[in-house]
Amino acid sequence: MKKLAIIGSTGSVGTQTLDVITQHADQFEVEGLAAGSNADLFVEQVNKFRPKKASVSTKEIADRVRPLIPSGVELYYGEEGLIEVAAGTEAETVVTAIVGSAGLPATLAAISEGKHIGLANKETLVTAGHLVTGLAKKKGVSLLPVDSEHSAIFQCLNGERMEDVERITLTASGGSFRDLSRDQLQHVTVEDALKHPNWSMGAKITIDSATMVNKGLEVIEARWLFGMSFEQIGVLLHPESIVHSFVEYRDGSVIAQLGTPDMRVPIQYALSYPERWTSSTKRLSLAEVGKLHFREMDMVRYPCLRLAFECGKIGGTATSVYNAANEVAVARFLNREISFLQIEHIIESVLSRHEVQAEPDLEAIKEADRWARETARSL
Amino acid sequence: MKKLAIIGSTGSVGTQTLDVITQHADQFEVEGLAAGSNADLFVEQVNKFRPKKASVSTKEIADRVRPLIPSGVELYYGEEGLIEVAAGTEAETVVTAIVGSAGLPATLAAISEGKHIGLANKETLVTAGHLVTGLAKKKGVSLLPVDSEHSAIFQCLNGERMEDVERITLTASGGSFRDLSRDQLQHVTVEDALKHPNWSMGAKITIDSATMVNKGLEVIEARWLFGMSFEQIGVLLHPESIVHSFVEYRDGSVIAQLGTPDMRVPIQYALSYPERWTSSTKRLSLAEVGKLHFREMDMVRYPCLRLAFECGKIGGTATSVYNAANEVAVARFLNREISFLQIEHIIESVLSRHEVQAEPDLEAIKEADRWARETARSL
Repeated sequence: MKKLAIIGSTGSVGTQTLDVITQHADQFEVEGLAAGSNADLFVEQVNKFRPKKASVSTKEIADRVRPLIPSGVELYYGEEGLIEVAAGTEAETVVTAIVGSAGLPATLAAISEGKHIGLANKETLVTAGHLVTGLAKKKGVSLLPVDSEHSAIFQCLNGERMEDVERITLTASGGSFRDLSRDQLQHVTVEDALKHPNWSMGAKITIDSATMVNKGLEVIEARWLFGMSFEQIGVLLHPESIVHSFVEYRDGSVIAQLGTPDMRVPIQYALSYPERWTSSTKRLSLAEVGKLHFREMDMVRYPCLRLAFECGKIGGTATSVYNAANEVAVARFLNREISFLQIEHIIESVLSRHEVQAEPDLEAIKEADRWARETARSL
Repeated sequence: MKKLAIIGSTGSVGTQTLDVITQHADQFEVEGLAAGSNADLFVEQVNKFRPKKASVSTKEIADRVRPLIPSGVELYYGEEGLIEVAAGTEAETVVTAIVGSAGLPATLAAISEGKHIGLANKETLVTAGHLVTGLAKKKGVSLLPVDSEHSAIFQCLNGERMEDVERITLTASGGSFRDLSRDQLQHVTVEDALKHPNWSMGAKITIDSATMVNKGLEVIEARWLFGMSFEQIGVLLHPESIVHSFVEYRDGSVIAQLGTPDMRVPIQYALSYPERWTSSTKRLSLAEVGKLHFREMDMVRYPCLRLAFECGKIGGTATSVYNAANEVAVARFLNREISFLQIEHIIESVLSRHEVQAEPDLEAIKEADRWARETARSL
């Protein structure tokens, strides 16, 4: 029995993680579940999986759900509740499926307690890669990628020596607007943006796919997860999302991981690693797919990706600012306050005003994050 | 220093093996070289690599080359000479680059002496898979595939558990005639057949690619190399020869090995395994390739592949007969005695007359081989 806690259990990755757990019910015990404000789904999950500890975002929601869950479940709320679920149970592995920078303190707390991390929270490595990987190394815990691209790279590194790796390439579908020119992007709507062709995902990440910020965050994550330099990381447009990413070795060999787009496969791999378990996911038939397309990534068409590489190379607080400015800009776009192209303008403007601090501690990261959000709101 | 012997050093795989050795000259010592009748190239190779033992096909050639090679090199000839080079040196690994069933006794002799095998000789596993894998297991030696498809599968299995494998798929370019219908195949010439679009290979294997016998032999080899059932082995048409083969795992994940078509990469991997060494091979750019195509294999269009699966499932001497009948038929085609489509007719006719013997020993295999050749010549 693997003991698990999930923070962000009602989101897209959280629910799919629980799907995997349901399919392999005899393999798992759910020790903790933390959700945000989706009280109905939270109640349903807690009644089904009977965690020892559970948490929601606010006291008000906690009061509302308390009568609806089993009395044996310890209920918490807020940032402390999140940390209690992440670090205060007997879980061996914590799946960080929460979206946004709130995931960082909880992830650090879990690592401090020696728990392995099924890492889906991008901000953990984007904002504090040096702290998180340093602590994980010290505590001897594994950071197991849940994202399909990083899981692909992780799988393609199986049984290989890191010194034999020449480069890694993350594939990108190009998002909802991949066939639009920059001119055409000026008038796209929230509804247009949310039609992502390949993956079933939340709204924020769907916008991030269209701006390529998502790929930018993944590039920065990959730098930390695999100890690569940014010069060794490439991005390739691949509209079908069948080749999930690949590793090039110094002998010229390329090892790629492929599959039908289904997040439950990388989620399950993070939980079953180093084993593989059966899955009912649709099998890939390349004969049925017929053709796979690949195109050079265009950094002019996707300036947010260029910015990610630039931030990543600068390091320090730059990547936190990139992420925080984007979070605010996407929220403002989803709120119909700004146009789609203003997302990138806001990120670039905030970054240009930022004074980067190298090797920041948690406080400095928080401060940079706060400052970037405030600035992004004001633009 | 890795000590090597190469049998079949003047053929396509042999010369490319020596290319790899030249590129990593400080890693290798060539203990033995065996060639057939290409005396000029043999002399050149022996002078360059200074093996302790060397061999050619006949006494006549041996007498001719003796004055032209260093006096310290022990020179042999014939089947005994081949075995001397394969098994009688201090080589740790023997690359079996020889084409045809003459490779089998030499390979068995090398395994008996505890030498690892860089396996390029298809007949070894096709005709005597049960004997070769049994002896290799007993002697604790590795059978390292040199063929690009098997090397790909081997690489895709790195760090994985065999019980997690669902199936393997070998890709096939479709050969020189992949765009011709069966009607159009009736009048193709030797010259047409030898224009293989992707790989630089010998004449026999180029014809085998066009008939898909080559893939059939590879399927049978894969069965033995990876301990798969024939139901777990698929073949997929992939004209670009970029995806060299892939493994599907039970979680729905597919791991594929890709690269520009260059035999020196799988050859080098067999020699460097489990490490990877630098290679000057052209790096794969999927953006440059742009598109990869895949098509279901058509067993009606390629009856020789259907026959290979049938033989493989029957087992025993059936696969030896398949191989021997094909060798004769291809020689007759290259000799302009028969038409292209008669190759498959001869294989099928010989097979239909054969009484299969299960679990044959080396003598029974030789006898089946001899009978099949004689029969194939008479049709």
